[in-house]
Amino acid sequence: MCRTEVRIKAMSQFELVIGNKNYSSWSLRPWLVLRHFRIPFTECRIPLYQGDSKAALLEHSPSGRAPVLHDGTTTVWDSLAIIEYLVEKHAEKGIWPVDREARAIARAVSAEMHSGFEALRTHLPMNCRARGRIRALTEEAERDVMRVQEIWTSCRREFGDRGEWLFGDFSAADAMFAPVVIRFSGYGIRCDERGSAYVDFVLGHPALQEWMNHAQGESEIVEELEVGEERE
Amino acid sequence: MCRTEVRIKAMSQFELVIGNKNYSSWSLRPWLVLRHFRIPFTECRIPLYQGDSKAALLEHSPSGRAPVLHDGTTTVWDSLAIIEYLVEKHAEKGIWPVDREARAIARAVSAEMHSGFEALRTHLPMNCRARGRIRALTEEAERDVMRVQEIWTSCRREFGDRGEWLFGDFSAADAMFAPVVIRFSGYGIRCDERGSAYVDFVLGHPALQEWMNHAQGESEIVEELEVGEERE
Repeated sequence: MCRTEVRIKAMSQFELVIGNKNYSSWSLRPWLVLRHFRIPFTECRIPLYQGDSKAALLEHSPSGRAPVLHDGTTTVWDSLAIIEYLVEKHAEKGIWPVDREARAIARAVSAEMHSGFEALRTHLPMNCRARGRIRALTEEAERDVMRVQEIWTSCRREFGDRGEWLFGDFSAADAMFAPVVIRFSGYGIRCDERGSAYVDFVLGHPALQEWMNHAQGESEIVEELEVGEERE
Repeated sequence: MCRTEVRIKAMSQFELVIGNKNYSSWSLRPWLVLRHFRIPFTECRIPLYQGDSKAALLEHSPSGRAPVLHDGTTTVWDSLAIIEYLVEKHAEKGIWPVDREARAIARAVSAEMHSGFEALRTHLPMNCRARGRIRALTEEAERDVMRVQEIWTSCRREFGDRGEWLFGDFSAADAMFAPVVIRFSGYGIRCDERGSAYVDFVLGHPALQEWMNHAQGESEIVEELEVGEERE
């Protein structure tokens, strides 16, 4: 179904339709879940913010937005709904934490990210190529940044004993916050010690590095998402 | 834990913290799921938009927002995460559709509602007491209204054979769209035939009527949420 760009990887059960890797924070989330858990999938990239983006996306999903997952004749859209679909299809992978309470909190912080943080998202658009920039924060964005760090700190403190991820092992919650990590890193947002350690750890994930390397190679420039000033 | 208002109903496993029934669309969603599926719960109402609302909510959840679900020592926040928690605790209830594809689409449209429709939410704030008003739509709100109807129509057409709800039987997806039904009804938003039938059907649900009756009895008036003009 992907007519816009050449398919990457061999035939597999799932096809994930994504936007530009440089800008599409929603696309990154299920992509990272698929990659981390080594679930085979075909990737279909549709550059967003171009004249025919909407029409191309509407061929894949009635929402007209990326990401979209195709699984045979089933089409699922929205990052969180795609993740829940993968959770059901791959129950053995532990995409959410295995412990019930940890899983409940992982879903809570992921849903909070999914529906909120408007100021952070608007003021600090994800831009993988924005390295070493500075962006002064609005009051609302500052509040969002504080809340994100509070989430990271409390998850790590209460559930993070077994590893470096929010709930010890990697889970969908880390995927939900990965675009925030890229934003914090790219715009020089200062974190406390735990927050900084988490940012560095996430950035070092091979799958995230793969995504960011691909983003470097993309040619589309969307001016309104090129915010922040170069650091002196 | 609810110190703000007297608890309603007898002791039960779950306590749901909600905002004003008149205004808190997010609170309505898990409340309706609990009520429809006859899952016993204690209700704790914290009027929002008052001076001490935030502090009162922070006693219940680190997000400082309603709704919040307490289950013993476990605290879950965010409407969608609460619903997924109830889905796990009451697998026998069929809170999402039983069929896998229907369930995937139900989660997709619910997640789309959860993270999107900003124009609709801002321009048409939920207000259970706003009966017979008229509200001119902005272009963005008009697009949201169209998309909502498209969702309703496609779900009813593809999965609604067995009943009057989006997926035949009542599911969490209907709860996610219930506040939109109240908005459409209250502000005189015209729907196509199928949409109008769905709006009327949802409004007739005894649990929704119970919620709206309670809302009528609330005394708090939040001026910025009192939009729309009375019909002549």
